[in-house]
Amino acid sequence: MFAVTILGNNSAIPAYDRHPTAQVVTLFDQHILIDCGEGTQMQLAKYKMRKSKINHIFISHLHGDHYFGLIGLLTSMGLVGRTNDLHVYAPAALEKIIQLQLSVADTVLPYTLIFHAIQHEGLIANTNKFTVECFATKHRVECWGFVIREKKDPRKIDKEKIKQFDIPAAYYNALKKGADYETKEGNIIKNDLVTIENTLARSYAYSADTIYDESLIEKVQNVSLLYHEATYLKGLEELALKRYHSTTIQAATIALKARVDKLIVGHFSSKYEQLDDFLTETQTVFVNCELAMEGVTYLIK
Amino acid sequence: MFAVTILGNNSAIPAYDRHPTAQVVTLFDQHILIDCGEGTQMQLAKYKMRKSKINHIFISHLHGDHYFGLIGLLTSMGLVGRTNDLHVYAPAALEKIIQLQLSVADTVLPYTLIFHAIQHEGLIANTNKFTVECFATKHRVECWGFVIREKKDPRKIDKEKIKQFDIPAAYYNALKKGADYETKEGNIIKNDLVTIENTLARSYAYSADTIYDESLIEKVQNVSLLYHEATYLKGLEELALKRYHSTTIQAATIALKARVDKLIVGHFSSKYEQLDDFLTETQTVFVNCELAMEGVTYLIK
Repeated sequence: MFAVTILGNNSAIPAYDRHPTAQVVTLFDQHILIDCGEGTQMQLAKYKMRKSKINHIFISHLHGDHYFGLIGLLTSMGLVGRTNDLHVYAPAALEKIIQLQLSVADTVLPYTLIFHAIQHEGLIANTNKFTVECFATKHRVECWGFVIREKKDPRKIDKEKIKQFDIPAAYYNALKKGADYETKEGNIIKNDLVTIENTLARSYAYSADTIYDESLIEKVQNVSLLYHEATYLKGLEELALKRYHSTTIQAATIALKARVDKLIVGHFSSKYEQLDDFLTETQTVFVNCELAMEGVTYLIK
Repeated sequence: MFAVTILGNNSAIPAYDRHPTAQVVTLFDQHILIDCGEGTQMQLAKYKMRKSKINHIFISHLHGDHYFGLIGLLTSMGLVGRTNDLHVYAPAALEKIIQLQLSVADTVLPYTLIFHAIQHEGLIANTNKFTVECFATKHRVECWGFVIREKKDPRKIDKEKIKQFDIPAAYYNALKKGADYETKEGNIIKNDLVTIENTLARSYAYSADTIYDESLIEKVQNVSLLYHEATYLKGLEELALKRYHSTTIQAATIALKARVDKLIVGHFSSKYEQLDDFLTETQTVFVNCELAMEGVTYLIK
């Protein structure tokens, strides 16, 4: 499974029961948390997503609607006795804020919090299941987008064939990477006899808060799913520019030019109670789009 | 109106849809906020309490379940264009946390935040409608309880009588304070002819997080309503002591010895899904007690 679940889709001020930004990317048995607005720990509980499955948290920037829920989540993880390491990737200043809040409460976390200050674009996380690259966006303060790519071997084992040739399981990993198999007798079994081509690795890009910025196109090129903010409807393009945000049409244009498979838009302004027009407008430019709705899980295909 | 509305009644970790501590004391047309756990701004919206009516915020101590929602509330107040001064009374270290969080977001609040670092017991706020005294409680970190007392004149105008003697409205304030009235002709109208004794000024005490501590009795003596924490049922008295908290019986004992009119207990541990036993146990010692339930407004009589 590779999917993203929206825990909050609103910008700045919570409104109409919409929460500030937070989303969970689920990859196999792990949850990766991207941004953590106020109330995220309650939203995790509401949507029955176990915080113990979160080992990596990415914070795009230090506006409150993207991180005010982090300290509560970190301390709650401690209170329930977490011992696994937790990796937090964020602008450098966040480390000081966390340490200050822990120190005034005389709190020592029972787990190791490994803080990764984001310094420049590129690969920031590399696990056996996925990689994460970050890229700078243009916002009022330092802000980072993220691309999460699943790691996938180029070949898959053909279960029927592998039985037929009686190849020991210890060799499967090499076969998945394309190696041939040599029998005890010295015979070579060519890789494509016992494997089949794997599906392409899927990817998810979150472009955080940003003005319309064509330099993003290259960063999110061809991803399976792009989350692009659309704080405003198209009529407020000037306001969007002034506040370093994007409109529906701008989000869709980036998706179109980057040839992504699918787009979800979110980070809606509290100006809007009804969201229908966000979809209508976006789809005039990029059809394969959905609104990022709280509690909904979007499969990454 | 003098009343307290509970926005959160849980301790430490949010659980069973119970939120961390926050409560609103409504006095005439003003809301006074006491503690501000994560999600308080959403709880204010949920229970339709306007944040624009809050001019004074009191924070008992710097454990997250009592203040992690403050920075979100302060910034949201700014985002909706507040210009009125806001007074925050709290342990000194909170000011640094707030300033750091504002500075990393490049945020300048459009209103003046007047931070009052609590240094010692005594009167900390004195407005034309109410006073607030603080007192130290015994908790794991520096912690303060608060007593809010309405200001009330000793006498009330007797509307029938005042007409009869034709006394101008300009003299009402002096009459309420007990003065006699002298007519133009030099005749003296004795105060008790045109006024009646006022009801006693009401008071609300919030004793924050605390172990069982008989020194509190004197601090909350005779208040109209006492909120005392009862994190645990009586069976966990040892754990309560270890964690610097109280049990049902301990909360009720303080209420009894302080001769308060009424008690509400809250700050329930996440151990407990059902709360019925909290009431049963407390009432074995102090009958006029209720549980502090979210969204409920308790009139202070």
